[in-house]
Amino acid sequence: MPLDARTVDQLDEKALLARIFPRLGPDTALLGPGDDAAVIAAPDGRTVISIDTLVEDADFRLLWPCGYRTSGFDVGWKCVAQNVSDIRAMGAVPTSLVVSLTLPGTTEVSWVEDLAEGLAAGIASLAFENCSVVGGDLGRGSQIVVTAAVTGDLQGRRPVLRSGARPGDILAHVGSLGLAAGGLAVLESGLELADPAGAEDVELGSLALAQLRPRPPYAAAGPAAAAAGATAMLDVSDGLVRDAGRIARASGVAIDLDAGYLSSRAEMLAPAAGRLGADPLEWVLGGGEDHGLLATFGPEAILPKGFIRLGEVHGGEGVTFGGEEPPATGWDHFAG
Amino acid sequence: MPLDARTVDQLDEKALLARIFPRLGPDTALLGPGDDAAVIAAPDGRTVISIDTLVEDADFRLLWPCGYRTSGFDVGWKCVAQNVSDIRAMGAVPTSLVVSLTLPGTTEVSWVEDLAEGLAAGIASLAFENCSVVGGDLGRGSQIVVTAAVTGDLQGRRPVLRSGARPGDILAHVGSLGLAAGGLAVLESGLELADPAGAEDVELGSLALAQLRPRPPYAAAGPAAAAAGATAMLDVSDGLVRDAGRIARASGVAIDLDAGYLSSRAEMLAPAAGRLGADPLEWVLGGGEDHGLLATFGPEAILPKGFIRLGEVHGGEGVTFGGEEPPATGWDHFAG
Repeated sequence: MPLDARTVDQLDEKALLARIFPRLGPDTALLGPGDDAAVIAAPDGRTVISIDTLVEDADFRLLWPCGYRTSGFDVGWKCVAQNVSDIRAMGAVPTSLVVSLTLPGTTEVSWVEDLAEGLAAGIASLAFENCSVVGGDLGRGSQIVVTAAVTGDLQGRRPVLRSGARPGDILAHVGSLGLAAGGLAVLESGLELADPAGAEDVELGSLALAQLRPRPPYAAAGPAAAAAGATAMLDVSDGLVRDAGRIARASGVAIDLDAGYLSSRAEMLAPAAGRLGADPLEWVLGGGEDHGLLATFGPEAILPKGFIRLGEVHGGEGVTFGGEEPPATGWDHFAG
Repeated sequence: MPLDARTVDQLDEKALLARIFPRLGPDTALLGPGDDAAVIAAPDGRTVISIDTLVEDADFRLLWPCGYRTSGFDVGWKCVAQNVSDIRAMGAVPTSLVVSLTLPGTTEVSWVEDLAEGLAAGIASLAFENCSVVGGDLGRGSQIVVTAAVTGDLQGRRPVLRSGARPGDILAHVGSLGLAAGGLAVLESGLELADPAGAEDVELGSLALAQLRPRPPYAAAGPAAAAAGATAMLDVSDGLVRDAGRIARASGVAIDLDAGYLSSRAEMLAPAAGRLGADPLEWVLGGGEDHGLLATFGPEAILPKGFIRLGEVHGGEGVTFGGEEPPATGWDHFAG
């Protein structure tokens, strides 16, 4: 039987781990995988920690209506992207991941190998050099469930919370807005796009890739915002309006989004949205999973590289769009 | 509709979190739940970290053949027990958990509340006072999947690895052996035992409870073993023979188990095993999930409180039972 066609129920745990570990890249921990637990450095006496999960059929489909089959690489990459974004949003740099894989017995071994390579590639592209997978867990289930906990190092800085925005602050953002939502619409559409990366239709192909392998902004953006005096910050994972609302609520302020600028961002997505019968402003305001960073800065602050002014902080509560009710809200991961 | 009868698909994420957080007990982190990530103290500049998952139908059944319905409390407790054991096995004390819950929409809200209470009770009983749930993630899936990553503090000590055992060392263990395996046999049996805690049949009821709510040895056992100079240590989660084999392999040594003593431990389980048609020695040697600690110590070491001599370390490789091939091995979480 060719190696690639084997499924995970044909290997024991040890044999499967032996397929995974060599693909994870260099181990950067004080004590890496293989014991009951790993040991990582926490140079400033604190560790930032977060956890996030991807579930088959809730967070990705193995086979999309457009014909694309999600690769293990996609899931590994996305797992890293969404996890490290939470660490960056505190102004920290990622230092390690521990990853738990729940797999149906019918999962192909090559798919799992590909997942390990996606984790390694995601870490190499989106984290810093002193980050690696330092441990994990393997088990059986009826669906693929990939959970990672990620740690980070604040490098002596104060963590940037959601609660520090003040009236008069500038709201700024770095990263893409609405691309992952557009990609979801492409993947869920009846349009044939079995190979987004190789598609002649670059417009739709690149949107699909933004959903499958999101590219959060450059790795230093979070720490740079912290160093520039960001008063509040979070990772935009559930949509701009919803996540801006989280800053507003935590800080006890109102946020007004720049309707002119955001409409121009939506305008750039209008051709693709038109082909899918979708509203591009809904992608920009309500779409999650781009994992940009949304932060507030004092009125005198010099915005770090890549950050673009997106609105203003006022006294009051709630989120407005050019002073009006926003035309779209966002994504509730649970209610769906 | 009475509150308890609601299912999680009738609540959004925020409302469900509002049911969970108040039940988790006091927050001990530098920055607790509610932001993109938490911040915990790492007083000696290092953090120990591990991850472990419980999956419905693989690690527990919601309804067992004996008629017992697994409560959320059971799953929360067991999640803590198996996670903190990995931290103790390094000689560290647990400092935080981050918990990801994947839930079918039909899960009752009261079951999830109960799970939060099981987490809190497990932490209060099995961890130290400076440990709490500092963050989490909620999502939808077709099965209940509970993943926790747990951190620990080595309090300035060296981590105790699996690889430090040397010929001449004593093998010692603290905790129960074979009870959780016996409990699994009870729960999987056709015997009626819908209420193990209240069962008149205390023998079978207490075994079932050892599977449902394992009680690892006292919280300081791991740090005490480290302080007493343990040369190697691990948490017995997959069975004594299998886990002793891990120390033997990592350390490049052979381990001989004390057949007389272990047979006498099995003898104590013989009445229950007899009623179930099972071999009690198989429970003792092959049963996992009791989460005792297995450690090696130099021949002159004074064993810490609770540790019992269980065998010897020799040159060579592999695990023997009174010099012979062990009559039982253990559990492969993946191959099942």
